[in-house]
Amino acid sequence: MTDAPHLSNEATGAETLIETLVDCGVDTCFTNPGTSEMHVVAAIDKVPGMRPILALFEGVATGAADGYARMAGKPASTLLHLGPGLANGIANLHNAKRAGSGIVNIVGDHATYHGKYDAPLTSDIRSLASPVSSWVKSAPDAASLAPLAAEAVAEANRSPGHIATLLVPADSAWDVARMAAKSLAPSAPPRVAEADIVAAAKRLKGAAKPVILVGGPATYEEGLKLAGQIAEATGATLYSDTFNKRVQRGAGRVAAAPVPYFGEMALDAMAGSDLMLVIGTKAPVAFFAYPGKPSSLVPEGCEVLELCEREADINAALSDLATELDAHKIKPALQPLNRPDVPASGALDSVSIGNSIGALLPEGAIVADEGVSNGLWSYILTAGSAPHDWLNLTGGAIGMGMPLATGAAVAVPDRKVVCLEGDGSGMYTVQALWTQARENLDVTTVIFNNGAYQILNIEYDRVGVGAPGEKATSMLSLNEPVLDWVKIAEGMGVEAVRVDTAEGFTAAFAAAMAQKGPRLIEAIVP
Amino acid sequence: MTDAPHLSNEATGAETLIETLVDCGVDTCFTNPGTSEMHVVAAIDKVPGMRPILALFEGVATGAADGYARMAGKPASTLLHLGPGLANGIANLHNAKRAGSGIVNIVGDHATYHGKYDAPLTSDIRSLASPVSSWVKSAPDAASLAPLAAEAVAEANRSPGHIATLLVPADSAWDVARMAAKSLAPSAPPRVAEADIVAAAKRLKGAAKPVILVGGPATYEEGLKLAGQIAEATGATLYSDTFNKRVQRGAGRVAAAPVPYFGEMALDAMAGSDLMLVIGTKAPVAFFAYPGKPSSLVPEGCEVLELCEREADINAALSDLATELDAHKIKPALQPLNRPDVPASGALDSVSIGNSIGALLPEGAIVADEGVSNGLWSYILTAGSAPHDWLNLTGGAIGMGMPLATGAAVAVPDRKVVCLEGDGSGMYTVQALWTQARENLDVTTVIFNNGAYQILNIEYDRVGVGAPGEKATSMLSLNEPVLDWVKIAEGMGVEAVRVDTAEGFTAAFAAAMAQKGPRLIEAIVP
Repeated sequence: MTDAPHLSNEATGAETLIETLVDCGVDTCFTNPGTSEMHVVAAIDKVPGMRPILALFEGVATGAADGYARMAGKPASTLLHLGPGLANGIANLHNAKRAGSGIVNIVGDHATYHGKYDAPLTSDIRSLASPVSSWVKSAPDAASLAPLAAEAVAEANRSPGHIATLLVPADSAWDVARMAAKSLAPSAPPRVAEADIVAAAKRLKGAAKPVILVGGPATYEEGLKLAGQIAEATGATLYSDTFNKRVQRGAGRVAAAPVPYFGEMALDAMAGSDLMLVIGTKAPVAFFAYPGKPSSLVPEGCEVLELCEREADINAALSDLATELDAHKIKPALQPLNRPDVPASGALDSVSIGNSIGALLPEGAIVADEGVSNGLWSYILTAGSAPHDWLNLTGGAIGMGMPLATGAAVAVPDRKVVCLEGDGSGMYTVQALWTQARENLDVTTVIFNNGAYQILNIEYDRVGVGAPGEKATSMLSLNEPVLDWVKIAEGMGVEAVRVDTAEGFTAAFAAAMAQKGPRLIEAIVP
Repeated sequence: MTDAPHLSNEATGAETLIETLVDCGVDTCFTNPGTSEMHVVAAIDKVPGMRPILALFEGVATGAADGYARMAGKPASTLLHLGPGLANGIANLHNAKRAGSGIVNIVGDHATYHGKYDAPLTSDIRSLASPVSSWVKSAPDAASLAPLAAEAVAEANRSPGHIATLLVPADSAWDVARMAAKSLAPSAPPRVAEADIVAAAKRLKGAAKPVILVGGPATYEEGLKLAGQIAEATGATLYSDTFNKRVQRGAGRVAAAPVPYFGEMALDAMAGSDLMLVIGTKAPVAFFAYPGKPSSLVPEGCEVLELCEREADINAALSDLATELDAHKIKPALQPLNRPDVPASGALDSVSIGNSIGALLPEGAIVADEGVSNGLWSYILTAGSAPHDWLNLTGGAIGMGMPLATGAAVAVPDRKVVCLEGDGSGMYTVQALWTQARENLDVTTVIFNNGAYQILNIEYDRVGVGAPGEKATSMLSLNEPVLDWVKIAEGMGVEAVRVDTAEGFTAAFAAAMAQKGPRLIEAIVP
């Protein structure tokens, strides 16, 4: 127990909860509270140090917590309203879980004695929380709230980041508890055994055409540099996961090609490899199954060696492997500065947008990418831009981009955030724009408005059911009516502009890069 | 197995699924599909009879299915994308479960052989579905899809309506199955035993100050008429649940006062009662617990007699009780036609809005009420309006109003739907407006824009934590920036107008009642 300098002897459980979170380094709360959380709201008011950020929908709060964790390198908290409030946040918690982002969810619950009455908002919160949490506990009384909060933070900080969900019955929040809890020592990520390092080095050296696949924290600058040295030392080709928590890339950094999304392209790319060394992730699998196509994306005849999953001390493993291969002094292949030319004029499409972004992306920018079928060109064409961070949709649950950008901008307010967003995916959590306006976050959102769930038109063809008829087309189209993103953004307080030419996009994007604050560019694309 | 006239010998599991649903009377699908559902999309294209209605967010789809069930008296289906897609629909499934609405959820899943690869979208769908479903099954192969679909429809139709969730692995959808399944005989709702009827009649007659509390199907016209006769015969006061699936009310009908939301008001209202006969629901409980206040809303000294829950044959129970009390020939107290005067001019507030709506609500209108702190006056002031149906937020999970209105308008396209919506609650599922525009639904949405989660300002005070400080205020306020609902609506293709005077509202509401199609009125209220 700590001295809890801000707490009186009459401190409520909720106050000890907030004090403990703040003491443990969790000082940001993405929130959408309800009646059962009012004592926690009051505690945020009373106890110094916790910044509340209101979201108008819980999926915004959880997605923002993910973006915050990816950029701050530590967890934020969320404050959610019982089972349904948590449920609204589950899709983005799923993405955060897949990213390995640390989050502490504070979920209000009915008072312990009230549960048996089965009031309208009663539900099985544990059943809802478990699929997206590695830790779910409920505080049976006020005194247990603070120690459980410390435990939750420790779990959220466990490498590479985990989701801890703490259920807070209303009486545990409002009863007197008095003392906050000390933060718990973080658990050290497990080291990879020396024998495994030695074996991996030997296998790499013996392979004719090895690939190294990195994921998790291995896509940060330091990990990629070590992986680049190892690749250079062994002639291996370096890949990353298709969708990553955070890739530090651009000029002066080691580049790792993402495994292509479509399985046949992935297998083609890696065909002929005889060894796949996997570090910080798992061997690649198809995002979806398709009739007659393989689920595993390991090429035939390629042996897989999984050195460690992402929970391990990744950088230590890479460093040990580099040592074993005597690779520390090797200069890895670094991406040269190589910006595309700004398109002078012409039609607007995902390629011209990629060119504009590649040319104009400022150093230190963060790109939150949910561009779906239109985002890939921007990824390709920013390869040689100034150094920046790229955040992917990790769990496939669309509706992540704008919340992720929101949280990233809260975490690092001095850096420009660019959100690449589909018109379809953007609508799931469109409320994020309001939070960007309220907090005056430095986020530029690019909406690829093609009037369709275009990826599904592609997938419809790929699953082999022929051409879509009238009803299927209606289910994959976003026309009738066309979404007007300028009005939607302005309705939530974000300045917006619509462009339909390459020069128009370039001008709008350049203007957005030159000033701070939220704005949205609606790019009309084919 | 049926003849399945629309199916070839090569019919896929998905085609037999859709054929079976249509044969069983489920002919509407509120959908937001993804790649794993593409064969179901193709089947909706190919098999005649299923109307797909696209929603841009799953909470719209599930809330619309609830509204559809309440008005059509039969289930619709939803089509949702794996765990995260289902998760986005859970809050409104929670409301639908509390309403007792029948829904058949079709949730896509990875191919059976693909699950073990733990692809990014893999999650524990059963754990997510169980809290909001009375039936969750997965089709292990194509041949089992049709019989399980028939089972799901039977469960959804079980009185008063239940939620059945059918998981459809992609290979079960795309493999050949050939045959649809016959619909199953609906299960009859259980009859209340004669002895219980006799005992209830005796207790009612012996009570000094009885109340009768009705819920579930007992708030439909026929049930209310019988309950009114029983009340008249025994001197009982008639109450309904606070929040109801569907109340048939207005001129010429028997009125039941809803139990007040705030517990102390509920206890005051029913104080001195010595018997509470409960029919089609459960004894009243506080929506939330508050420090030092009771959870049960049964007044002291009042005996509770729960005659039957809502799964029973409610109208038969009421009729048997009326027979036992010789009440069938009694003329119950009917609500006279008593419309309020249209406010000529003046300030706009929830009372003046209630007056306008009460005066102008057309016969046969359906009101989807998520007005939260502002909706109550509209309920009170429509008591003597032309006969209409009133649909409440049954589960407390806000974000239900606009989806509910959407589904109701699909179910009964010849009737005017009015949606009363808060600015805070409306933002959760704002995407519903787009579906209203696409389907040209006859819905008039009234947004009470007070720039706050006003109910939470009230609750903050009620939980006894004093006045909100700066941070708490920021978490309960929707200003900075102010939402512009006209732009938001127009951005999704719905005509909209902002009003801030009583005469302005009256003119806008009268215009909306006089024409068909979706429109939105943003009412600026204190």
